[in-house]
Amino acid sequence: MSGTLYGIGVGPGDPELMTVKAVRLIGEADVIAYPTLAGGESFARAIASGVIPSSAREIRMDVPMTHAREPAQAAYDKGAEQIADALAAGEMVVCLCEGDPFYYGSFMYLFARLSDRFNVEVIPGVTSMTACAARAGLPLVARNELLTVLPGPLPEEELRKRIEGAESIVIMKVGQHLPKLRGVLADLGLLDRAIYVERATLPEEKVLPMTKAPETAPYFSMILLTKGADPWL
Amino acid sequence: MSGTLYGIGVGPGDPELMTVKAVRLIGEADVIAYPTLAGGESFARAIASGVIPSSAREIRMDVPMTHAREPAQAAYDKGAEQIADALAAGEMVVCLCEGDPFYYGSFMYLFARLSDRFNVEVIPGVTSMTACAARAGLPLVARNELLTVLPGPLPEEELRKRIEGAESIVIMKVGQHLPKLRGVLADLGLLDRAIYVERATLPEEKVLPMTKAPETAPYFSMILLTKGADPWL
Repeated sequence: MSGTLYGIGVGPGDPELMTVKAVRLIGEADVIAYPTLAGGESFARAIASGVIPSSAREIRMDVPMTHAREPAQAAYDKGAEQIADALAAGEMVVCLCEGDPFYYGSFMYLFARLSDRFNVEVIPGVTSMTACAARAGLPLVARNELLTVLPGPLPEEELRKRIEGAESIVIMKVGQHLPKLRGVLADLGLLDRAIYVERATLPEEKVLPMTKAPETAPYFSMILLTKGADPWL
Repeated sequence: MSGTLYGIGVGPGDPELMTVKAVRLIGEADVIAYPTLAGGESFARAIASGVIPSSAREIRMDVPMTHAREPAQAAYDKGAEQIADALAAGEMVVCLCEGDPFYYGSFMYLFARLSDRFNVEVIPGVTSMTACAARAGLPLVARNELLTVLPGPLPEEELRKRIEGAESIVIMKVGQHLPKLRGVLADLGLLDRAIYVERATLPEEKVLPMTKAPETAPYFSMILLTKGADPWL
Protein backbone atom coordinates (compact mmCIF):
# COMPACT_ATOMS: atom_id res chain seq x y z
CA MET A 1 0.00 0.00 0.00
CA SER A 2 1.29 3.43 -0.96
CA GLY A 3 2.22 6.00 1.64
CA THR A 4 0.72 9.46 2.02
CA LEU A 5 2.32 12.76 1.09
CA TYR A 6 1.63 15.57 3.55
CA GLY A 7 2.15 19.18 2.49
CA ILE A 8 2.58 20.85 5.86
CA GLY A 9 2.54 24.56 6.60
CA VAL A 10 5.09 25.26 9.33
CA GLY A 11 4.01 28.88 9.86
CA PRO A 12 5.82 32.21 9.60
CA GLY A 13 9.02 31.56 11.52
CA ASP A 14 8.59 31.06 15.27
CA PRO A 15 8.68 27.24 15.68
CA GLU A 16 5.98 27.56 18.38
CA LEU A 17 3.61 28.79 15.65
CA MET A 18 3.61 25.35 14.06
CA THR A 19 0.29 23.62 14.61
CA VAL A 20 0.01 20.64 16.93
CA LYS A 21 -0.87 18.59 13.85
CA ALA A 22 2.25 19.74 11.98
CA VAL A 23 4.47 18.77 14.90
CA ARG A 24 2.83 15.34 15.23
CA LEU A 25 3.00 14.51 11.50
CA ILE A 26 6.58 15.73 11.09
CA GLY A 27 7.53 13.54 14.04
CA GLU A 28 5.98 10.49 12.35
CA ALA A 29 7.57 11.05 8.93
CA ASP A 30 9.80 8.52 7.19
CA VAL A 31 10.92 11.13 4.68
CA ILE A 32 11.18 14.93 4.97
CA ALA A 33 11.17 16.88 1.68
CA TYR A 34 11.67 20.57 1.00
CA PRO A 35 12.73 22.87 -1.81
CA THR A 36 15.68 25.21 -1.49
CA LEU A 37 16.45 28.20 -3.64
CA ALA A 38 19.76 28.32 -5.45
CA GLY A 39 21.47 25.95 -3.03
CA GLY A 40 20.63 28.02 0.05
CA GLU A 41 19.22 26.80 3.32
CA SER A 42 15.54 25.90 3.61
CA PHE A 43 13.69 28.33 5.89
CA ALA A 44 10.88 25.78 6.33
CA ARG A 45 13.40 23.15 7.44
CA ALA A 46 14.96 25.61 9.89
CA ILE A 47 11.53 26.29 11.45
CA ALA A 48 10.81 22.56 11.83
CA SER A 49 14.33 21.45 12.71
CA GLY A 50 13.57 20.84 16.39
CA VAL A 51 10.91 18.22 15.61
CA ILE A 52 12.35 16.38 12.59
CA PRO A 53 13.07 12.81 13.67
CA SER A 54 16.73 11.84 13.42
CA SER A 55 15.66 8.67 11.61
CA ALA A 56 14.02 10.60 8.76
CA ARG A 57 15.58 10.57 5.32
CA GLU A 58 15.61 13.96 3.59
CA ILE A 59 14.79 14.86 -0.02
CA ARG A 60 16.11 18.25 -0.91
CA MET A 61 14.94 19.91 -4.11
CA ASP A 62 17.46 22.49 -5.28
CA VAL A 63 15.48 24.96 -7.34
CA PRO A 64 17.70 27.27 -9.37
CA MET A 65 16.91 30.98 -9.14
CA THR A 66 16.13 31.94 -12.72
CA HIS A 67 13.25 33.36 -14.72
CA ALA A 68 13.44 30.44 -17.14
CA ARG A 69 10.85 27.74 -16.54
CA GLU A 70 12.77 24.64 -17.48
CA PRO A 71 15.44 24.42 -14.75
CA ALA A 72 12.84 24.86 -11.97
CA GLN A 73 10.50 22.41 -13.66
CA ALA A 74 13.32 19.88 -13.84
CA ALA A 75 14.04 20.31 -10.11
CA TYR A 76 10.41 19.67 -9.18
CA ASP A 77 10.19 16.79 -11.66
CA LYS A 78 13.18 15.12 -10.04
CA GLY A 79 11.93 15.80 -6.50
CA ALA A 80 8.47 14.50 -7.37
CA GLU A 81 9.95 11.27 -8.71
CA GLN A 82 12.04 10.74 -5.55
CA ILE A 83 8.93 11.38 -3.46
CA ALA A 84 6.90 9.04 -5.70
CA ASP A 85 9.44 6.27 -5.14
CA ALA A 86 9.16 6.72 -1.36
CA LEU A 87 5.35 6.74 -1.49
CA ALA A 88 5.27 3.66 -3.71
CA ALA A 89 7.44 1.92 -1.11
CA GLY A 90 4.78 2.71 1.50
CA GLU A 91 6.71 5.49 3.20
CA MET A 92 5.11 8.56 4.80
CA VAL A 93 6.51 11.73 3.22
CA VAL A 94 6.21 15.20 4.71
CA CYS A 95 6.95 18.23 2.54
CA LEU A 96 7.76 21.27 4.70
CA CYS A 97 6.27 24.58 3.54
CA GLU A 98 6.88 28.05 4.96
CA GLY A 99 3.62 29.62 6.08
CA ASP A 100 0.78 27.77 4.41
CA PRO A 101 1.26 25.29 1.52
CA PHE A 102 -1.40 26.83 -0.76
CA TYR A 103 -0.75 30.51 0.06
CA TYR A 104 2.09 31.62 -2.24
CA GLY A 105 3.78 28.28 -1.63
CA SER A 106 5.74 26.07 -3.96
CA PHE A 107 3.95 22.96 -2.73
CA MET A 108 1.44 23.37 -5.53
CA TYR A 109 4.10 22.16 -7.97
CA LEU A 110 4.42 18.86 -6.12
CA PHE A 111 0.66 18.68 -5.63
CA ALA A 112 0.17 19.09 -9.40
CA ARG A 113 2.68 16.33 -10.09
CA LEU A 114 1.59 13.77 -7.50
CA SER A 115 -2.02 14.23 -6.36
CA ASP A 116 -3.50 12.17 -9.20
CA ARG A 117 -1.32 9.16 -8.37
CA PHE A 118 -1.01 9.28 -4.59
CA ASN A 119 -2.92 10.26 -1.48
CA VAL A 120 -1.91 13.85 -0.73
CA GLU A 121 -3.06 15.80 2.33
CA VAL A 122 -2.52 19.49 2.85
CA ILE A 123 -2.17 20.75 6.43
CA PRO A 124 -2.77 24.51 6.61
CA GLY A 125 -0.43 26.73 8.57
CA VAL A 126 -0.26 30.26 9.96
CA THR A 127 0.47 32.62 7.06
CA SER A 128 3.06 35.37 7.21
CA MET A 129 0.20 37.75 6.44
CA THR A 130 -1.65 37.34 9.72
CA ALA A 131 1.63 36.93 11.62
CA CYS A 132 2.74 40.35 10.37
CA ALA A 133 -0.59 41.90 11.32
CA ALA A 134 -0.36 40.37 14.80
CA ARG A 135 3.16 41.64 15.34
CA ALA A 136 2.29 45.09 13.97
CA GLY A 137 -0.77 45.34 16.25
CA LEU A 138 -2.84 46.07 13.18
CA PRO A 139 -6.28 44.50 12.77
CA LEU A 140 -6.27 43.53 9.10
CA VAL A 141 -9.93 43.21 8.19
CA ALA A 142 -13.21 43.14 10.04
CA ARG A 143 -16.92 43.08 9.34
CA ASN A 144 -17.58 43.65 5.62
CA GLU A 145 -14.17 45.00 4.69
CA LEU A 146 -12.32 43.81 1.63
CA LEU A 147 -8.78 42.52 1.65
CA THR A 148 -6.46 42.72 -1.34
CA VAL A 149 -3.19 40.81 -1.38
CA LEU A 150 -0.67 42.06 -3.92
CA PRO A 151 2.76 40.63 -4.72
CA GLY A 152 5.43 43.35 -4.75
CA PRO A 153 6.92 42.27 -8.12
CA LEU A 154 3.78 43.44 -9.99
CA PRO A 155 4.33 46.33 -12.40
CA GLU A 156 4.05 49.81 -10.92
CA GLU A 157 0.91 50.75 -12.84
CA GLU A 158 -0.89 47.59 -11.83
CA LEU A 159 0.04 48.15 -8.18
CA ARG A 160 -1.16 51.75 -8.32
CA LYS A 161 -4.51 50.77 -9.84
CA ARG A 162 -5.07 47.93 -7.39
CA ILE A 163 -4.12 49.94 -4.32
CA GLU A 164 -6.37 52.84 -5.34
CA GLY A 165 -9.40 50.59 -5.52
CA ALA A 166 -8.66 48.60 -2.38
CA GLU A 167 -9.52 48.76 1.32
CA SER A 168 -7.12 46.74 3.47
CA ILE A 169 -3.96 45.88 1.59
CA VAL A 170 -1.17 43.39 2.11
CA ILE A 171 1.87 43.62 -0.15
CA MET A 172 3.87 40.39 -0.13
CA LYS A 173 7.40 39.66 -1.37
CA VAL A 174 8.56 43.25 -0.93
CA GLY A 175 12.32 42.60 -1.08
CA GLN A 176 14.03 44.46 -3.91
CA HIS A 177 10.73 46.11 -4.87
CA LEU A 178 10.75 48.36 -1.80
CA PRO A 179 11.78 51.59 -3.61
CA LYS A 180 9.07 51.11 -6.25
CA LEU A 181 6.44 50.42 -3.58
CA ARG A 182 7.54 53.40 -1.52
CA GLY A 183 7.08 55.59 -4.60
CA VAL A 184 3.60 54.25 -5.39
CA LEU A 185 2.41 54.68 -1.79
CA ALA A 186 3.86 58.20 -1.64
CA ASP A 187 2.13 59.17 -4.89
CA LEU A 188 -1.17 57.92 -3.50
CA GLY A 189 -0.69 59.78 -0.22
CA LEU A 190 -0.69 56.52 1.71
CA LEU A 191 2.91 56.35 2.90
CA ASP A 192 2.08 57.59 6.40
CA ARG A 193 -0.45 54.83 6.94
CA ALA A 194 1.67 51.92 5.75
CA ILE A 195 3.59 49.59 8.06
CA TYR A 196 6.69 47.64 7.12
CA VAL A 197 7.32 44.23 8.67
CA GLU A 198 10.40 42.08 8.19
CA ARG A 199 10.93 38.49 9.45
CA ALA A 200 7.80 38.53 11.62
CA THR A 201 7.88 36.34 14.76
CA LEU A 202 11.65 35.73 14.49
CA PRO A 203 14.21 37.21 16.91
CA GLU A 204 15.46 39.58 14.18
CA GLU A 205 11.92 40.84 13.43
CA LYS A 206 11.44 44.50 12.43
CA VAL A 207 8.15 46.42 12.60
CA LEU A 208 8.46 49.99 11.35
CA PRO A 209 6.37 52.78 9.91
CA MET A 210 6.88 52.63 6.14
CA THR A 211 8.48 56.07 6.34
CA LYS A 212 11.27 54.48 8.39
CA ALA A 213 11.66 51.27 6.40
CA PRO A 214 15.24 50.37 5.49
CA GLU A 215 16.64 51.02 2.05
CA THR A 216 16.99 47.34 1.27
CA ALA A 217 14.46 44.75 2.35
CA PRO A 218 14.85 40.97 2.55
CA TYR A 219 12.59 38.68 0.55
CA PHE A 220 10.62 37.91 3.71
CA SER A 221 9.21 41.39 4.19
CA MET A 222 5.73 42.79 3.85
CA ILE A 223 3.80 46.05 3.79
CA LEU A 224 0.44 46.35 5.55
CA LEU A 225 -2.02 49.14 4.95
CA THR A 226 -5.53 49.57 6.26
CA LYS A 227 -7.54 52.49 5.03
CA GLY A 228 -10.37 52.19 7.55
CA ALA A 229 -9.98 54.93 10.14
CA ASP A 230 -11.55 53.80 13.38
CA PRO A 231 -13.18 50.58 14.47
CA TRP A 232 -16.93 50.25 14.14
CA LEU A 233 -17.35 49.36 17.77
CA MET B 1 2.34 44.48 38.11
CA SER B 2 -0.42 44.15 35.53
CA GLY B 3 -1.05 40.89 33.68
CA THR B 4 -0.95 40.41 29.93
CA LEU B 5 -3.92 39.97 27.62
CA TYR B 6 -3.35 37.42 24.84
CA GLY B 7 -5.62 37.43 21.79
CA ILE B 8 -5.15 33.89 20.56
CA GLY B 9 -6.21 32.46 17.22
CA VAL B 10 -7.39 28.88 17.74
CA GLY B 11 -7.65 28.06 14.05
CA PRO B 12 -10.48 26.93 11.80
CA GLY B 13 -12.06 24.11 13.82
CA ASP B 14 -9.88 21.00 14.19
CA PRO B 15 -8.33 21.39 17.67
CA GLU B 16 -5.10 19.91 16.29
CA LEU B 17 -4.79 23.00 14.10
CA MET B 18 -4.17 25.16 17.15
CA THR B 19 -0.55 26.27 17.31
CA VAL B 20 1.81 24.92 19.94
CA LYS B 21 1.97 28.45 21.33
CA ALA B 22 -1.82 28.72 21.59
CA VAL B 23 -2.01 25.45 23.49
CA ARG B 24 0.76 26.48 25.88
CA LEU B 25 -0.65 29.93 26.62
CA ILE B 26 -4.22 28.72 27.04
CA GLY B 27 -2.91 26.14 29.51
CA GLU B 28 -1.22 28.89 31.55
CA ALA B 29 -4.21 31.25 31.63
CA ASP B 30 -5.83 32.51 34.83
CA VAL B 31 -8.81 33.81 32.89
CA ILE B 32 -10.33 32.67 29.58
CA ALA B 33 -12.47 35.22 27.72
CA TYR B 34 -14.57 34.90 24.58
CA PRO B 35 -17.51 36.56 22.91
CA THR B 36 -20.70 34.66 22.08
CA LEU B 37 -23.39 35.70 19.63
CA ALA B 38 -26.92 36.05 20.90
CA GLY B 39 -26.39 33.71 23.84
CA GLY B 40 -25.16 30.83 21.70
CA GLU B 41 -22.13 28.66 22.27
CA SER B 42 -18.64 29.97 21.51
CA PHE B 43 -17.07 28.12 18.59
CA ALA B 44 -13.61 29.29 19.69
CA ARG B 45 -14.20 27.90 23.18
CA ALA B 46 -15.35 24.59 21.70
CA ILE B 47 -12.14 24.33 19.66
CA ALA B 48 -9.98 25.02 22.72
CA SER B 49 -12.07 23.13 25.25
CA GLY B 50 -9.64 20.23 25.59
CA VAL B 51 -6.80 22.47 26.77
CA ILE B 52 -8.59 25.04 28.97
CA PRO B 53 -7.35 24.53 32.53
CA SER B 54 -10.08 23.58 34.98
CA SER B 55 -8.77 26.27 37.33
CA ALA B 56 -9.40 29.07 34.81
CA ARG B 57 -12.15 31.59 35.42
CA GLU B 58 -14.20 32.43 32.32
CA ILE B 59 -15.41 35.81 31.07
CA ARG B 60 -18.17 35.42 28.55
CA MET B 61 -19.22 38.41 26.47
CA ASP B 62 -22.76 37.97 25.18
CA VAL B 63 -22.95 40.07 22.05
CA PRO B 64 -26.53 40.58 20.87
CA MET B 65 -27.19 39.90 17.19
CA THR B 66 -28.44 43.23 15.90
CA HIS B 67 -27.50 45.83 13.33
CA ALA B 68 -27.57 48.55 15.98
CA ARG B 69 -24.16 49.52 17.32
CA GLU B 70 -24.95 50.29 20.91
CA PRO B 71 -25.90 46.87 22.32
CA ALA B 72 -22.76 45.26 20.88
CA GLN B 73 -20.62 48.18 22.04
CA ALA B 74 -22.04 47.80 25.53
CA ALA B 75 -21.21 44.08 25.54
CA TYR B 76 -17.59 44.74 24.59
CA ASP B 77 -17.38 47.66 27.02
CA LYS B 78 -18.51 45.41 29.86
CA GLY B 79 -16.22 42.54 28.81
CA ALA B 80 -13.26 44.91 28.48
CA GLU B 81 -13.84 46.22 31.98
CA GLN B 82 -13.99 42.70 33.44
CA ILE B 83 -10.77 41.86 31.59
CA ALA B 84 -9.18 45.13 32.76
CA ASP B 85 -9.98 44.24 36.38
CA ALA B 86 -8.30 40.85 35.96
CA LEU B 87 -5.23 42.39 34.27
CA ALA B 88 -4.97 45.07 36.97
CA ALA B 89 -4.97 42.27 39.55
CA GLY B 90 -1.98 40.74 37.75
CA GLU B 91 -3.85 37.90 36.11
CA MET B 92 -3.04 36.44 32.71
CA VAL B 93 -6.05 36.66 30.42
CA VAL B 94 -6.48 34.72 27.19
CA CYS B 95 -9.16 35.76 24.71
CA LEU B 96 -10.04 32.90 22.38
CA CYS B 97 -10.58 33.80 18.72
CA GLU B 98 -11.78 31.58 15.88
CA GLY B 99 -9.22 31.46 13.09
CA ASP B 100 -6.91 34.43 13.51
CA PRO B 101 -7.60 37.38 15.87
CA PHE B 102 -6.99 40.12 13.27
CA TYR B 103 -8.55 38.37 10.26
CA TYR B 104 -12.28 39.14 10.43
CA GLY B 105 -12.20 38.63 14.18
CA SER B 106 -13.94 40.47 16.96
CA PHE B 107 -10.76 40.67 19.03
CA MET B 108 -10.05 44.07 17.50
CA TYR B 109 -12.84 45.51 19.67
CA LEU B 110 -11.06 44.41 22.82
CA PHE B 111 -7.70 45.42 21.39
CA ALA B 112 -9.05 48.92 20.72
CA ARG B 113 -10.38 49.17 24.26
CA LEU B 114 -7.39 47.79 26.16
CA SER B 115 -4.12 48.02 24.22
CA ASP B 116 -3.34 51.57 25.37
CA ARG B 117 -3.66 50.62 29.04
CA PHE B 118 -2.31 47.06 29.17
CA ASN B 119 0.22 44.79 27.55
CA VAL B 120 -1.64 42.98 24.76
CA GLU B 121 -0.12 40.24 22.59
CA VAL B 122 -1.74 38.81 19.50
CA ILE B 123 -0.97 35.19 18.61
CA PRO B 124 -1.82 34.48 14.98
CA GLY B 125 -3.75 31.36 14.03
CA VAL B 126 -4.61 29.31 10.95
CA THR B 127 -7.35 31.16 9.06
CA SER B 128 -10.47 29.47 7.70
CA MET B 129 -9.33 30.76 4.29
CA THR B 130 -6.26 28.58 3.95
CA ALA B 131 -7.96 25.73 5.80
CA CYS B 132 -10.72 25.72 3.15
CA ALA B 133 -8.16 25.81 0.34
CA ALA B 134 -6.28 22.89 1.92
CA ARG B 135 -9.42 20.81 2.29
CA ALA B 136 -10.60 21.66 -1.23
CA GLY B 137 -7.20 20.69 -2.70
CA LEU B 138 -7.10 24.12 -4.36
CA PRO B 139 -3.86 26.11 -4.43
CA LEU B 140 -5.10 29.62 -3.65
CA VAL B 141 -2.36 31.90 -4.95
CA ALA B 142 1.17 31.48 -6.25
CA ARG B 143 3.93 33.54 -7.79
CA ASN B 144 2.65 37.02 -8.71
CA GLU B 145 -1.06 36.29 -8.47
CA LEU B 146 -3.45 38.61 -6.68
CA LEU B 147 -5.84 37.50 -4.00
CA THR B 148 -9.10 39.28 -3.26
CA VAL B 149 -11.08 38.47 -0.13
CA LEU B 150 -14.72 39.55 -0.23
CA PRO B 151 -17.32 39.28 2.51
CA GLY B 152 -20.56 37.72 1.21
CA PRO B 153 -22.82 40.42 2.73
CA LEU B 154 -21.49 43.06 0.28
CA PRO B 155 -24.08 44.44 -2.16
CA GLU B 156 -24.54 42.48 -5.38
CA GLU B 157 -23.16 45.21 -7.64
CA GLU B 158 -20.03 45.64 -5.52
CA LEU B 159 -19.44 41.89 -5.53
CA ARG B 160 -19.88 41.70 -9.29
CA LYS B 161 -17.44 44.55 -9.91
CA ARG B 162 -14.83 43.15 -7.52
CA ILE B 163 -15.06 39.60 -8.85
CA GLU B 164 -14.74 40.76 -12.46
CA GLY B 165 -11.47 42.54 -11.74
CA ALA B 166 -9.98 39.84 -9.53
CA GLU B 167 -7.76 36.79 -9.97
CA SER B 168 -8.01 34.36 -7.05
CA ILE B 169 -11.10 35.04 -4.95
CA VAL B 170 -12.22 34.02 -1.49
CA ILE B 171 -15.77 34.87 -0.45
CA MET B 172 -16.18 34.76 3.33
CA LYS B 173 -19.33 34.69 5.47
CA VAL B 174 -21.45 33.11 2.73
CA GLY B 175 -24.34 31.97 4.93
CA GLN B 176 -27.66 33.48 3.92
CA HIS B 177 -26.01 35.26 0.99
CA LEU B 178 -25.55 32.02 -0.96
CA PRO B 179 -28.40 32.60 -3.48
CA LYS B 180 -27.12 36.10 -4.27
CA LEU B 181 -23.55 34.83 -4.71
CA ARG B 182 -24.71 31.94 -6.88
CA GLY B 183 -26.48 34.45 -9.13
CA VAL B 184 -23.46 36.74 -9.43
CA LEU B 185 -21.10 33.87 -10.24
CA ALA B 186 -23.55 32.44 -12.79
CA ASP B 187 -23.91 35.84 -14.50
CA LEU B 188 -20.13 36.09 -14.76
CA GLY B 189 -19.81 32.57 -16.15
CA LEU B 190 -17.74 31.49 -13.13
CA LEU B 191 -20.14 29.10 -11.41
CA ASP B 192 -18.42 25.98 -12.80
CA ARG B 193 -15.06 27.03 -11.38
CA ALA B 194 -16.21 27.91 -7.86
CA ILE B 195 -15.91 25.57 -4.89
CA TYR B 196 -18.13 25.66 -1.82
CA VAL B 197 -16.66 24.71 1.57
CA GLU B 198 -18.59 24.43 4.82
CA ARG B 199 -17.13 23.85 8.32
CA ALA B 200 -13.65 23.05 6.99
CA THR B 201 -11.54 20.63 9.10
CA LEU B 202 -14.50 19.60 11.26
CA PRO B 203 -16.11 16.13 11.09
CA GLU B 204 -19.21 17.64 9.41
CA GLU B 205 -17.13 19.39 6.72
CA LYS B 206 -18.54 19.71 3.20
CA VAL B 207 -16.49 20.41 0.07
CA LEU B 208 -18.64 20.68 -3.06
CA PRO B 209 -18.58 22.20 -6.51
CA MET B 210 -20.57 25.44 -6.25
CA THR B 211 -23.10 23.95 -8.67
CA LYS B 212 -23.92 21.36 -5.97
CA ALA B 213 -23.87 23.69 -2.96
CA PRO B 214 -26.85 23.31 -0.63
CA GLU B 215 -29.74 25.77 -0.72
CA THR B 216 -28.96 27.10 2.73
CA ALA B 217 -25.44 27.63 4.01
CA PRO B 218 -24.24 28.07 7.60
CA TYR B 219 -22.38 31.21 8.65
CA PHE B 220 -19.11 29.27 8.56
CA SER B 221 -19.06 28.65 4.84
CA MET B 222 -16.89 29.99 2.06
CA ILE B 223 -16.58 30.08 -1.71
CA LEU B 224 -13.18 29.71 -3.40
CA LEU B 225 -12.48 30.60 -6.98
CA THR B 226 -9.20 30.66 -8.85
CA LYS B 227 -9.20 31.93 -12.40
CA GLY B 228 -5.68 30.80 -13.27
CA ALA B 229 -5.91 27.76 -15.51
CA ASP B 230 -2.79 25.67 -15.05
CA PRO B 231 0.24 25.96 -12.81
CA TRP B 232 3.31 27.71 -14.14
CA LEU B 233 5.50 24.75 -13.47
